[in-house]
Amino acid sequence: MKRVDEFRPNGLITLTTDFGLEDPFVGVMKGVILQRFADARIVDLTHGVRAQAVAEAGFWLGRSYRWFPSGSVHVAVVDPGVGTGRAALVVAAGGHVFLAPDNGLLSPVFAEHQDAEVREIDVARLGLPTPSRTFHGRDVFAPVAAMLASSHTDFAELGVVAESPVQIPIERIELQAGKIKGHVVCIDRFGNAITDISEDVLGDASGSKVLVGNREVPMGFTYADVREGECLALVNSFGCLEVAMRNGDAAVTLGLAPGDTVTVVSNEDS
Amino acid sequence: MKRVDEFRPNGLITLTTDFGLEDPFVGVMKGVILQRFADARIVDLTHGVRAQAVAEAGFWLGRSYRWFPSGSVHVAVVDPGVGTGRAALVVAAGGHVFLAPDNGLLSPVFAEHQDAEVREIDVARLGLPTPSRTFHGRDVFAPVAAMLASSHTDFAELGVVAESPVQIPIERIELQAGKIKGHVVCIDRFGNAITDISEDVLGDASGSKVLVGNREVPMGFTYADVREGECLALVNSFGCLEVAMRNGDAAVTLGLAPGDTVTVVSNEDS
Amino acid sequence: MKRVDEFRPNGLITLTTDFGLEDPFVGVMKGVILQRFADARIVDLTHGVRAQAVAEAGFWLGRSYRWFPSGSVHVAVVDPGVGTGRAALVVAAGGHVFLAPDNGLLSPVFAEHQDAEVREIDVARLGLPTPSRTFHGRDVFAPVAAMLASSHTDFAELGVVAESPVQIPIERIELQAGKIKGHVVCIDRFGNAITDISEDVLGDASGSKVLVGNREVPMGFTYADVREGECLALVNSFGCLEVAMRNGDAAVTLGLAPGDTVTVVSNEDS
Repeated sequence: MKRVDEFRPNGLITLTTDFGLEDPFVGVMKGVILQRFADARIVDLTHGVRAQAVAEAGFWLGRSYRWFPSGSVHVAVVDPGVGTGRAALVVAAGGHVFLAPDNGLLSPVFAEHQDAEVREIDVARLGLPTPSRTFHGRDVFAPVAAMLASSHTDFAELGVVAESPVQIPIERIELQAGKIKGHVVCIDRFGNAITDISEDVLGDASGSKVLVGNREVPMGFTYADVREGECLALVNSFGCLEVAMRNGDAAVTLGLAPGDTVTVVSNEDS
Repeated sequence: MKRVDEFRPNGLITLTTDFGLEDPFVGVMKGVILQRFADARIVDLTHGVRAQAVAEAGFWLGRSYRWFPSGSVHVAVVDPGVGTGRAALVVAAGGHVFLAPDNGLLSPVFAEHQDAEVREIDVARLGLPTPSRTFHGRDVFAPVAAMLASSHTDFAELGVVAESPVQIPIERIELQAGKIKGHVVCIDRFGNAITDISEDVLGDASGSKVLVGNREVPMGFTYADVREGECLALVNSFGCLEVAMRNGDAAVTLGLAPGDTVTVVSNEDS
Repeated sequence: MKRVDEFRPNGLITLTTDFGLEDPFVGVMKGVILQRFADARIVDLTHGVRAQAVAEAGFWLGRSYRWFPSGSVHVAVVDPGVGTGRAALVVAAGGHVFLAPDNGLLSPVFAEHQDAEVREIDVARLGLPTPSRTFHGRDVFAPVAAMLASSHTDFAELGVVAESPVQIPIERIELQAGKIKGHVVCIDRFGNAITDISEDVLGDASGSKVLVGNREVPMGFTYADVREGECLALVNSFGCLEVAMRNGDAAVTLGLAPGDTVTVVSNEDS
């Protein structure tokens, strides 16, 4: 119960989905939140997760939530299993609360917080109307987020403890002699390929080579370490290895896509 | 006047436009609102309506506003006639207020609320500066929304009653023996084709077949009722018939676009 | 110091970037702001500036900030030089404060406000953690914006006066006998080509012809001055000459792109 005792709601709710902004789905979730908690402050983390890319949503949420104040409620809905029997989770960890389908999205939170308290949201016990079969963002996650953000809630009221929530490998690195093998998680708007190789694993990589596709790019520290139009790898501002091009689009130039292998070869072995 | 007496502003303003978010048009509307009403809470319903798709905006607004608390002001600007003599409307209905050009966008609101109070905004009477000829979202709708959301306004002050506001057929269904014929209103981000056939009209459609293009798809309840990559029709979370594919893009697979015909054939007649 | 004395923070922060909304970069900037200033009201001006299009961001910021109340803080991050030695600027002008990299983005603000106070943000003096090399939006601009928006700050504390901030030509018009030559700054979502020819320069242009590509379009006042599918030029709601098509996409039809030349030929000389 310790994790829960640490949570003091600050009224802030973040939203992460694959809904996009072309349709009113996100707007309607906000309406539901504001109907139950008029003073909610709602921040879009992103709604541009690729459709049904659960691991991508988990990756960004795990890397981003720490930039929000303690006491925030983070709602993440990438939910290919909506309408099936999959549970809806509420998790208290590190002074924050997370709400997401039980599909592995929260794996990075579980990996970081072994002592997280994880429960299955019990819609009936909470007195919520029967949810639709296709939009639990609006019918389950939004109202529960409003409850949690607006006042101190007894976690035990929310539902039973989830004994074995789904976990998926979001950071899938392999360590070999002098090599670290990881994967592209996503391509950002600038064409940077962001990988699952974190700086903790990487250590001091100065002088390393990074193999991507059948190309090799040097390690650097900042985009300006190479000339315009040249590619490099660097540890980005979220602590992940990233393959980038100075003032250009690395993903297009190198033909990179999510899932592609990226290998760091230390200097001695290259 | 009854509709107006029911409206108690709660400080919330929603925005629905076809402006997109690539340019600062929406941001500037918010600046104008906040200049007049610093405590406004502004929610984007969507700015991704197809350019000048008045009926699409009306469809989504009519399906979405009810998820916001009573006392909200809803601004919807899809405005191909800006700069012509078309009126700007303010409508009180169901405890909400709606602002939009007089081009039929609010037809679903009129259809639902026969007792709506509808007035033409009189910019001069309200003391607003002469609006530009091309951006009434900023120059007319934003300031009037701020007025209405910030305090109880005497509706009669806003302008004369609009005797016959423009109405357009947004839900254009045809009922035939054992058949309901409707249309695709829009394609959402997941490739689901959302139709104008509402659940009220549909009734119990279990066992029905849905014809779309030259294909036939079964009725289901949730995406998981078919196997991955298979298509189905279901009543979505907004109460509309929707043609979808489990973990795939129905619109691309079936070649669907807004305006396409969708026919529900009841079991007995198929 | 006069410019600074005029600045009374109103708690409002606007954001203009080329980050897009597909990734969580903007969301994380908001988290940092709210961590330092829980009551901040944050408005997205736009995040759809073309990647690394410094002049486009400056153009829109210069045209848009005046629609926000005095006392607002405007953060603009289009930052190809992040991680190099380029300074980060804080500028007080016209009752507003502007934060941006020292790369010319704020040129329109300098041009309008000769008496602007311009300082280089001194991260160490402000006690901020060492910023990452690639995301100063989060590590420099967001926290300083929160400081400035939350309380009256002594500008001299922020850093030394910037003696010669970078300036770039954002509005690059040439005046010739009976002709005004300008350029397309950007294409908006509707396919309107917005130029750097402002109404001050243009004066009364009724009867003028506008040359664009190898086509000629008439001057008008509003989109409805021509028939559907016809092109025209008009002064738009931001006071700029714009080439548009009634209910159509002028940029696609005329093959226009940012940087293209647009020439206004006065009636007498045509």
